Amino acid sequence: MSNAKVLPLIEPADGQDVVPCCSPLTERPMTADEAQVAARMFKALGDPVRLRLFSAVASHEGGEACVCDISDVGVSQPTVSHHLKKLKEAGLLTSERRGTWVYYRVEPSVLAGMGRLLTQPAA
Amino acid sequence: MSNAKVLPLIEPADGQDVVPCCSPLTERPMTADEAQVAARMFKALGDPVRLRLFSAVASHEGGEACVCDISDVGVSQPTVSHHLKKLKEAGLLTSERRGTWVYYRVEPSVLAGMGRLLTQPAA
Repeated sequence: MSNAKVLPLIEPADGQDVVPCCSPLTERPMTADEAQVAARMFKALGDPVRLRLFSAVASHEGGEACVCDISDVGVSQPTVSHHLKKLKEAGLLTSERRGTWVYYRVEPSVLAGMGRLLTQPAA
Repeated sequence: MSNAKVLPLIEPADGQDVVPCCSPLTERPMTADEAQVAARMFKALGDPVRLRLFSAVASHEGGEACVCDISDVGVSQPTVSHHLKKLKEAGLLTSERRGTWVYYRVEPSVLAGMGRLLTQPAA
């Protein structure tokens, strides 16, 4: 099997980064390369603490949050930072340092891509 | 932390099983219990082979497939069966034995629920 991580891409509007383009997974069987990329994102959300942190960032005022805003999930701050790093590595969050804190933001094009994957055919 | 698996539920139409009800994860922070259930489903799709098999079932004619239909993912049939079992345990597939074969079908209400989780707020 090929180890290539290359996916068909679409060019998003507004000069954002390109995002993995996948048809809804109910439309046709995914290829090995498509599944490789998409599984990485699903896996990143496949942990309850990470999912809560992702939701905390996504739903926070202004669509961004620092560790200081979202540490209310019952784990230590280093653990929070570790999970945020994992979400960033999976391409689900972007981050920016401003002063003392690193601010995290959900990557909207990736969320849209994952949502599209789960789109169901019209009945 | 509570180990309860209890989630707020909605009653789906047409006498289908109840499904975990979650608001879009961009709307408000998920609770621990919501995250527990949703993470289990994301985790099940967080493996490239499982994701390809799920897509193969979901996109197969009539919305269902047996192992005989979808073994073209480069792994052995026992491995295919193992992954299908995991998807079933996560509530993503249902199965029914008919004659020699077990037929798998995507649980549409669960797919809809996951899609709703990833819904983005209107711009």
